Amino acid sequence: MQHIGPFHVMSLLEQAKQMEAQGQSVIHMEIGEPDFPTPDAIIRAGMQALQQGQTRYTASKGLPELRQAIADYYAQRYQVNIDSARIIVTPGASGALQLALGALIGRDDEVLLADPTYPCNRHLISLVEGTPVAITTSPENGFQPSAAQIAAHWTDRTRAVMLATPANPTGSTVPRQSMQAIAELVAQRQGTLIVDEIYQGLVYEGEDYSALAVSDDCLVINSFSKFFQMTGWRLGWLIAPPDLVEPIERIAMNAFLAAPTLAQHAALAAFRPETLQLLDARRDVLRQRRDYLLHALRDMGFAIPVTPQGAFYIYADCSAVCNDSRQFAQDLLHSQQLAVTPGLDFGNNQPDRFIRFAYTAEIPVLEQAMHRLRQFLQR
Amino acid sequence: MQHIGPFHVMSLLEQAKQMEAQGQSVIHMEIGEPDFPTPDAIIRAGMQALQQGQTRYTASKGLPELRQAIADYYAQRYQVNIDSARIIVTPGASGALQLALGALIGRDDEVLLADPTYPCNRHLISLVEGTPVAITTSPENGFQPSAAQIAAHWTDRTRAVMLATPANPTGSTVPRQSMQAIAELVAQRQGTLIVDEIYQGLVYEGEDYSALAVSDDCLVINSFSKFFQMTGWRLGWLIAPPDLVEPIERIAMNAFLAAPTLAQHAALAAFRPETLQLLDARRDVLRQRRDYLLHALRDMGFAIPVTPQGAFYIYADCSAVCNDSRQFAQDLLHSQQLAVTPGLDFGNNQPDRFIRFAYTAEIPVLEQAMHRLRQFLQR
Repeated sequence: MQHIGPFHVMSLLEQAKQMEAQGQSVIHMEIGEPDFPTPDAIIRAGMQALQQGQTRYTASKGLPELRQAIADYYAQRYQVNIDSARIIVTPGASGALQLALGALIGRDDEVLLADPTYPCNRHLISLVEGTPVAITTSPENGFQPSAAQIAAHWTDRTRAVMLATPANPTGSTVPRQSMQAIAELVAQRQGTLIVDEIYQGLVYEGEDYSALAVSDDCLVINSFSKFFQMTGWRLGWLIAPPDLVEPIERIAMNAFLAAPTLAQHAALAAFRPETLQLLDARRDVLRQRRDYLLHALRDMGFAIPVTPQGAFYIYADCSAVCNDSRQFAQDLLHSQQLAVTPGLDFGNNQPDRFIRFAYTAEIPVLEQAMHRLRQFLQR
Repeated sequence: MQHIGPFHVMSLLEQAKQMEAQGQSVIHMEIGEPDFPTPDAIIRAGMQALQQGQTRYTASKGLPELRQAIADYYAQRYQVNIDSARIIVTPGASGALQLALGALIGRDDEVLLADPTYPCNRHLISLVEGTPVAITTSPENGFQPSAAQIAAHWTDRTRAVMLATPANPTGSTVPRQSMQAIAELVAQRQGTLIVDEIYQGLVYEGEDYSALAVSDDCLVINSFSKFFQMTGWRLGWLIAPPDLVEPIERIAMNAFLAAPTLAQHAALAAFRPETLQLLDARRDVLRQRRDYLLHALRDMGFAIPVTPQGAFYIYADCSAVCNDSRQFAQDLLHSQQLAVTPGLDFGNNQPDRFIRFAYTAEIPVLEQAMHRLRQFLQR
């Protein structure tokens, strides 16, 4: 338990809620949840499933027609052919990550992962008594671990490497060539490459591809939360190498029986051409927000060493304007009612220097936020 | 992973599905899922939540109004006052169990639990690298561990005891006096008593009470799946001692962020008087099925040493009619298209001798099932 940290941002969020309860108007740039409502077609499919009384358990691996729809999606959008037998539908990407770690990691097994990274990753490794091993990344490598770094950190206890593309908190992607080099290295060492693709589809620059197009041996984690904007439905999926499917299914049966039935039926509407068209249009809106925010932050003296290529975050170096990002976030919230996430939540790689800004609000709100930030800097 | 067994019944279920695909009519008495549809009021509340666009994350502990509704339910139905701050809404009882074990159990910590028991319990203990320690129960003690047995199995590694009342697979309950004695013992030894009450409300004989009425220090796991008939919604809850709430919330944030939003809104309708009235009427239907089945099975030579007081299972001793319950279940399925669960899934306490019959079908179907069973015995 001592290894399982809280999200520090939660205490900020708690303070923000108290301020709001007192009538203050807080702008939220700390939240990793898209502001778009779930597309109507998905909601309608959910209502239809309710009308039909679809309220009982599905198979542990998920509805066969949803698993096939996911396979078809990969074929059409990412030109990868995947047998639907390798797809397991999960309660959110969190559920997928738990299954992957439960199947692969025993006590003291090491998992290599980037620092900075999404904090749950290392906490869930600790929960199964594995050891998360942080690789300190640098802006020069796009905040992603290189094959050379992975080789240097490999020990006889290393069982897996986790990559995220696009990544939280940096929005950076792993180029296909690096993915190839890392996949080959991990295969040589007989480990497993776990790739978090939960921001797949939200790519604004460079290639939107799946690691499965590079290597059939990797284990991919995905979600209906981000691109498909289905956060509260709690639905994700995992694509496993064939020999891991049976052990993963066994853990799924024990750990959560099955993903929510209603969400699975609703998600069938997520892959319809008209839904995908809407989602692509929303991605373009996110890109515009990113462009606006990148410019505004750089203009105020924030350094953004790696232009984020995807997700909906900017990881900004605030060392020109403060020397303690946690205190900065605290003061910014209380003096300007603007909530952001300090680097501390993402690891030990110069966390005092960084702040994550989420662009999960419309541009007029972001403009207001930047106005508040400017006021704060001019104290 | 080698500790995480599959449910053996799953391979039977797989065979049953293949038989059905070939046009055979299988009667399912192996399934631990109520056959009643989710009550209409709950479905309507779910539809309303969808119409209102309630599709985003809730707080990790769940909707405050749902947590309060659960607290009110305990006050009204079970005469226990619980601060809603101690209630955490989870993705099913599976999620609640994971949180409890994650917060309490570290590597090699021992958890005492009954044999026979629901198989997930010991598998989830293994997943966090704890050690499940089985207490071989006997019909004389109603298939429940006694305080004396718990004392005898206690070591300096014991951290918790798990009880289930009513229990799966035996349907037996823990009388209030035993609960009191066990709670006192566990408190003396400074352990934690975890009580699985997921079949609460489905009690046909004896007292339907909560362990919280006996001891405020125990950790209670509950579910909307069984009494409330919301299986596919994946919703449960946990009531923790005050000092465990914060660590449990921390794990919830990391392990699954929050329970499904829609299910939480729908569940608000579960506690309305008219819903509870419907559910109580359905419980009476289950009681009638139990009474029918008890008589029919005993009539055919099955011994049922402990008359089940709750849940929807009969754990029958079949030693008068066979000497290998697994083979019996296998043969019964293939020759009579009747699916039941062999004792093997529930532990090592004479599993060859027992079969679990679930009465999750209407009486005419159960009559047909008993006809098939009689034919089988008269081979």
